[in-house]
Amino acid sequence: MSGDRASVLLRVTLPLDTLPIVSAHPDPMADEDYRLAVVDLLGALAYGELTAFGRLADDSSLAPTLGDKAALAAMAVAEYNHFALLRDRLVDLGAGPEEAMEPFIAALEAFHERTAPGNWLEGLVKAYVGDGIAEDFYREVSAYLDDSTRDLVLSVLEDTGHSAFAVERVRAAIEVDPRLAGRLALWGRRLVGEALSQAQRVAAERDALANLLVGGITERGADLAEVGRMFARLTENHTKRMASLGLSA
Amino acid sequence: MSGDRASVLLRVTLPLDTLPIVSAHPDPMADEDYRLAVVDLLGALAYGELTAFGRLADDSSLAPTLGDKAALAAMAVAEYNHFALLRDRLVDLGAGPEEAMEPFIAALEAFHERTAPGNWLEGLVKAYVGDGIAEDFYREVSAYLDDSTRDLVLSVLEDTGHSAFAVERVRAAIEVDPRLAGRLALWGRRLVGEALSQAQRVAAERDALANLLVGGITERGADLAEVGRMFARLTENHTKRMASLGLSA
Repeated sequence: MSGDRASVLLRVTLPLDTLPIVSAHPDPMADEDYRLAVVDLLGALAYGELTAFGRLADDSSLAPTLGDKAALAAMAVAEYNHFALLRDRLVDLGAGPEEAMEPFIAALEAFHERTAPGNWLEGLVKAYVGDGIAEDFYREVSAYLDDSTRDLVLSVLEDTGHSAFAVERVRAAIEVDPRLAGRLALWGRRLVGEALSQAQRVAAERDALANLLVGGITERGADLAEVGRMFARLTENHTKRMASLGLSA
Repeated sequence: MSGDRASVLLRVTLPLDTLPIVSAHPDPMADEDYRLAVVDLLGALAYGELTAFGRLADDSSLAPTLGDKAALAAMAVAEYNHFALLRDRLVDLGAGPEEAMEPFIAALEAFHERTAPGNWLEGLVKAYVGDGIAEDFYREVSAYLDDSTRDLVLSVLEDTGHSAFAVERVRAAIEVDPRLAGRLALWGRRLVGEALSQAQRVAAERDALANLLVGGITERGADLAEVGRMFARLTENHTKRMASLGLSA
């Protein structure tokens, strides 16, 4: 029997929605739990990028020189472009971008409210240290994603040039006034503590997202021992970032 | 005598900087007064775009919904892209972008300080009415520019979609609460008054720019009667914009 004949037979004997998917690469989004986890992940990332845009724009208006102002505005624009990519993918996945972002507003706003920078340097440390730990986390999660979603996540995590900018400005300020180091180190510890407490809150509220990480959905996730090692890696990278600022973690 | 021979002769007999410019389209920037006026104009526009970016980003963080937040962020990004075009042209003209923007900071900051919006609606009216009158002004000035500069100026004046957005939101708000109309009309009058007073300050301080407009540089500018007619057109357009918001001018 030729392939065409077989398909005619199928069309005749099966209702349309039970036609088997024949593909070497089955669509990972056919698994509804997985699709929901990805929508959650992209929604959280999208809202993070949109608030990063706003924060960098705020920092831009606080910038001491026109050159810094323009540089921070450029970084804000890069974050917005990441947001736009994520929003478009959410639409492709059949999700409303606003609905997908909604569940993460409270945790992110709480984080930003508790860690409002008191000045230009605290803002730089927050962007570098806070975004750094968030980026590391998303990079770890990306290991459990399908290729297409992973490529998107890794592309929006690309550094917009802010890291080098922050490191340079903070180190220069500490060189001028070494007493800043103690206060900024304390600020860095507070940032991490608040970030982890809000991350826990999200994990507790968003089952699909938490399952993605700890292996609840098919075989993709890590076991709990691997999650422990992941947190060790996050902490280690955080310590490195603080050191590159000239601060103790 | 062939052309080549003539040029050899010129090279021999004339010092380099007195070589005559032979072109059907002489470089308008060869006129140093004109080049300085263009640098002033682009510097003012560039700083205006950079602050428009910051203002729209601020409005984005005040936006009542996620959709509005994202829409305003997109408009802020469009303003930043305009800024980047102007900055690149300033560099092409041999000017430092920061030095070119510097003279306009005080007037623009004073304007924004005196017209800080008290709420979301005042912000929308300010962006629509304030940017509208500035755009009309730059469009008028563009009549006295060389083709290449005029094309750039007109391209960065292109509406980023903010006008329709502001009109829709303000009209909807007045429909819900008609008492808003009186307060917002007053606000519109204050905006124009402050804009004109800061424009006068700039004109008084920046000779090259003022000359560009009133015909001091070659034959490009308008005479004073034409300047009067220009102000009449600006006022007329302002009245139309207020009407489209549902407000009396």
